[in-house]
Amino acid sequence: MRVPLELRRAYKLLNHGPTTLVTSAAHGRTNVMAAAWAMPLDFDPPKVAVVIAEATFTRELVEASGEFTLCVPTRAQLEQVYAVGSASGREEDKWALYRLHSSPASRVQAPLVEGCVGWLECRVLSEPDVQRKYDLFIAEVVAAWVEDSVWKGTGWDFGGAEELRSVHHMAGGVFFTTGERVQALKPERK
Amino acid sequence: MRVPLELRRAYKLLNHGPTTLVTSAAHGRTNVMAAAWAMPLDFDPPKVAVVIAEATFTRELVEASGEFTLCVPTRAQLEQVYAVGSASGREEDKWALYRLHSSPASRVQAPLVEGCVGWLECRVLSEPDVQRKYDLFIAEVVAAWVEDSVWKGTGWDFGGAEELRSVHHMAGGVFFTTGERVQALKPERK
Repeated sequence: MRVPLELRRAYKLLNHGPTTLVTSAAHGRTNVMAAAWAMPLDFDPPKVAVVIAEATFTRELVEASGEFTLCVPTRAQLEQVYAVGSASGREEDKWALYRLHSSPASRVQAPLVEGCVGWLECRVLSEPDVQRKYDLFIAEVVAAWVEDSVWKGTGWDFGGAEELRSVHHMAGGVFFTTGERVQALKPERK
Repeated sequence: MRVPLELRRAYKLLNHGPTTLVTSAAHGRTNVMAAAWAMPLDFDPPKVAVVIAEATFTRELVEASGEFTLCVPTRAQLEQVYAVGSASGREEDKWALYRLHSSPASRVQAPLVEGCVGWLECRVLSEPDVQRKYDLFIAEVVAAWVEDSVWKGTGWDFGGAEELRSVHHMAGGVFFTTGERVQALKPERK
């Protein structure tokens, strides 16, 4: 079940470096694309950075609306993640083409992708220079949600839910799932 | 064995979102810290973005030298990664304290961390505004190296080398290893 997450914990959704789905909405259209180049940028209030290439339809919608969401997709969605990262939504409706379902977000117009395990609703912080030079968008997270079956206490815990593990794209459709959960010992001087 | 990697493939070292070690050198001192907030920013020439907090000794050395490396550590180094991310090198030598060994890089003064599986030598692209506002450093990758036992053909393939898997920090010393390698099917319209 999707449950709200305190904003001060929102960075944890991306801290382990999963590949994301970026949704956007403007001019009566919505779109979804994959972005592996996304990361947290601050804790509280939480900020994120994401690369949105210049020629993409997502870029056009994000620049028009000043909003997007970053969703954390799962192994069960692997083919869809790869597909929406390879095709453009300018001419076609990727939601219908790849059987992705959306639901409304709470504080932005861009929708949430159903079946994901984490969701960040984001408002762009205007940095025109880095947007133009590096296709880099900086945004504040204004709402966060998590799938509670893979979130125990204060963090991700996928347990035996193999199909709900987040994924990490390398290149060319080769992904790694998020692997074993390991706790490092409290640092001690060696 | 550490072998050179073509610059056009350098983005693959970080594309799956591993936690990194950042090394730096200036004024006759070197340092190493952990950074989970690092990602590729461009393919060729490759660029990266990394968050280096204002109060850190690494920040001082990177600002003085305009250089750093991003190294990809392994599960075998988990305790060390957590430790160098928790302590400051300003007063103490983290290399000695946590038994990390360095070797010279090829094109920057910052050293490479031995035992890692990937290494990016980076030169800062001056963006004073985002450095100041977001602690965000943008850099060009000028040399790249990979441990060839976990790199098959053109990408990561950890196979059975569990201790050489890269790691992904969530929070508070909880990490995930890089998990199962899965190939998504070529996108097809559903």
